[in-house]
Amino acid sequence: MTRLPTFQDVLEAMRRIVPYIHHTPVFTSATLNRMTRANIFFKLENLQKVGAFKARGGCNAVFALTGDQAARGVATHSSGNHAQAVAYAAGLRGIMATIVMPEDAPPVKVAAVRGYGARIVWTGNNPLDREHRLETVLEETGAVFIHPSNNFHVIAGQGTAALELLEEIPHLDVVMAPVGGGGLLSGTALAVAELAPRTRVIGVEPVTVDDAARSFRDGRIYPPTNAYTIADGLRTFLGDVTFPIIRNHVSDIVTVSEQGIIDAMRLVWERMKILIEPSSAVPVAALLEHSTLFRGQRVGIIISGGNVDLEHLPWIS
Amino acid sequence: MTRLPTFQDVLEAMRRIVPYIHHTPVFTSATLNRMTRANIFFKLENLQKVGAFKARGGCNAVFALTGDQAARGVATHSSGNHAQAVAYAAGLRGIMATIVMPEDAPPVKVAAVRGYGARIVWTGNNPLDREHRLETVLEETGAVFIHPSNNFHVIAGQGTAALELLEEIPHLDVVMAPVGGGGLLSGTALAVAELAPRTRVIGVEPVTVDDAARSFRDGRIYPPTNAYTIADGLRTFLGDVTFPIIRNHVSDIVTVSEQGIIDAMRLVWERMKILIEPSSAVPVAALLEHSTLFRGQRVGIIISGGNVDLEHLPWIS
Repeated sequence: MTRLPTFQDVLEAMRRIVPYIHHTPVFTSATLNRMTRANIFFKLENLQKVGAFKARGGCNAVFALTGDQAARGVATHSSGNHAQAVAYAAGLRGIMATIVMPEDAPPVKVAAVRGYGARIVWTGNNPLDREHRLETVLEETGAVFIHPSNNFHVIAGQGTAALELLEEIPHLDVVMAPVGGGGLLSGTALAVAELAPRTRVIGVEPVTVDDAARSFRDGRIYPPTNAYTIADGLRTFLGDVTFPIIRNHVSDIVTVSEQGIIDAMRLVWERMKILIEPSSAVPVAALLEHSTLFRGQRVGIIISGGNVDLEHLPWIS
Repeated sequence: MTRLPTFQDVLEAMRRIVPYIHHTPVFTSATLNRMTRANIFFKLENLQKVGAFKARGGCNAVFALTGDQAARGVATHSSGNHAQAVAYAAGLRGIMATIVMPEDAPPVKVAAVRGYGARIVWTGNNPLDREHRLETVLEETGAVFIHPSNNFHVIAGQGTAALELLEEIPHLDVVMAPVGGGGLLSGTALAVAELAPRTRVIGVEPVTVDDAARSFRDGRIYPPTNAYTIADGLRTFLGDVTFPIIRNHVSDIVTVSEQGIIDAMRLVWERMKILIEPSSAVPVAALLEHSTLFRGQRVGIIISGGNVDLEHLPWIS
């Protein structure tokens, strides 16, 4: 049976990664509170190392390796932020990292991975293509695979963002996070279930790639739809580690429209003066598209990242 | 003789405006420190109310009015941020505000001014046109004029940003601010001269509109060049209140290129994940274009604002 991480593993992750990550700030916005009639607390992981919460899970997984494991190097597949996180953590530990990246990955993310000294191996855009290409890399190099979401230490690491949020902001009614592979959502759920058991955890997903919402509803893991979403980090699917945690500790998974994501992203840029990537706008879109769920409530949102290709903004055609 | 504000007026401004403004955070960036080989502290007035430091001066000027003055309402001319600031402050105090705005003002700024309940009167793009149009408004309404920069209480209010910066970050070698009309620079200089007399204050200006740099060098106020700069907030000129303070307390005024401003703006967006407007990128550009001035030093920068028209980014043609 697969061993699942617990809240103790989140605490252990926090102790392990604290030298390598930022304690990110929590922001509020009078404008967004007024628009949503809620009291929103934004945990700004766009200001995290590598520009995304993924630095937490990547550092935890890399620094949890034994000396023998580390000597073999690490490898992963990722559309971007997890790639940067593993490359960043491997660079800090001084070990080899190989990243399987889709050929259409944003140039800014590719440049960042190279900047941390990792090796890139190209693949197609389909998630199954990536996994196949990765297997070849693992056979060739003997490296340790660090899955972007369905990994014990990655999940525990991602939970540290919610840990910091709950320590700073008490009495939240809801904590929301985007869901793709479910690493952030399951880690968040572990932290909330222990520290604030009456606080609901809600995952949010683009409606075009609603496999997590359907999986949650039907109690079994659906494969990815492979459909388009502007929230490119969320085109993945749940796994045998993330799914049981989500079933146990998450209250609901709701979906939002593509236009809602774009509008929410622009709203946060304009009014809060911070860059967030489309995946981070997904829970903000839920506040607007499912406003009755949140009215009058204290809502924590994990703003997952800020890595945007500034040459192509979705509202400029 | 014109009465000049002093450090005591900055302290008084702080007490007056503290209920209405944000105490903004100071950010650092490992990437920008590495690139410049300096130790930079960014005072984030893009996260200020109305998205710019101008909220400080606007609130100080409006709340310093006597009851009789306030009853007549206030008026000003502004390309944007000062307009929002006066509109915001007048709305808080419940008095009438009339704003003379150039017809090419960014739509997002126009919408914000309207949102605060102020009346807009349109004018041409030339600074002298604006002043003429304003005179008509003052005659018609009897309102109190709040100049965007050359105003006793505005200058004292703008100085509160540096006051907060110096209280939080000790031992700065330099504090930099952009200079257009000189309200921010002169207020900053008042705070630094008193609290950190060994810290240099450097103003930075786009080279295409270098009237402040020439005025500083030659000891007399030059009129505006009326040339183009992407830093639209800086197309103004020094006055008889700002200039003597700058002559007394500022070490130097340096200039930067238009491309340098665009590159610096994009760099801050990409690496720090915050939106800054072109005027705020002007001192950042100085770090890169005059790097030998700052190498190895502790540098404070007032990031003046974050009000950007997201339909038109300078690096997207």
